[in-house]
Amino acid sequence: MSTSQQAADVFSRNCPSREVFEDVTGKWAVLVLSALHQGPRRFGELRRRVDGVSEKMLSQTLQVLERDGLVLREVRSATPPHVEYTLTDLGTALAPRLLALIDFVEDALPQVLAARTARDDRA
Amino acid sequence: MSTSQQAADVFSRNCPSREVFEDVTGKWAVLVLSALHQGPRRFGELRRRVDGVSEKMLSQTLQVLERDGLVLREVRSATPPHVEYTLTDLGTALAPRLLALIDFVEDALPQVLAARTARDDRA
Repeated sequence: MSTSQQAADVFSRNCPSREVFEDVTGKWAVLVLSALHQGPRRFGELRRRVDGVSEKMLSQTLQVLERDGLVLREVRSATPPHVEYTLTDLGTALAPRLLALIDFVEDALPQVLAARTARDDRA
Repeated sequence: MSTSQQAADVFSRNCPSREVFEDVTGKWAVLVLSALHQGPRRFGELRRRVDGVSEKMLSQTLQVLERDGLVLREVRSATPPHVEYTLTDLGTALAPRLLALIDFVEDALPQVLAARTARDDRA
């Protein structure tokens, strides 16, 4: 699908937006982008914040988000120099939508657990 | 983490909300919930709408969403009887947040593609 001709449509598997959609959904991308909404973070800080992510998955996730222009990788010339990850303007625009999703899931947890219990009781 | 004692926290791998979060992120869940926001759909209708999903993945996704109380599977006593999938109240509350995410990705596509090109040019 030519995006200059037609609107992007994530429901269409051949639209390039589908791939971007895959990049930003998925738990690690959502958690990393949301964590960075609080401010720049080093790799190790992100790894601790996003509990359970492996070094490899965090590294891959950051690379994808950097490639898509959502995250910026910057070398800080402190002593010693270190790398920091920051949201770009685009990532900053996206993050509140992900935080809204996280808030929903956290708030909905009792209802989801109740639905599971009711279902198990019926089974 | 006991959710009656502490607030749910998807960043914590042992919080039960993390599993629910995994259920509702992921491209197929997001696309299915968003498709159902337009109204009840049969399996085959969903399969056509969510372009690229396999029968197996759609079936698994619907089962997970049904278990979490987000989607309802109903047998319609029409002639012939058929199965329809509908959003529950909880699913209806979630869907707009997913649609906001989809809208963002579709609108951001030109910027993402430009970021990728700029990055490839630097490489």
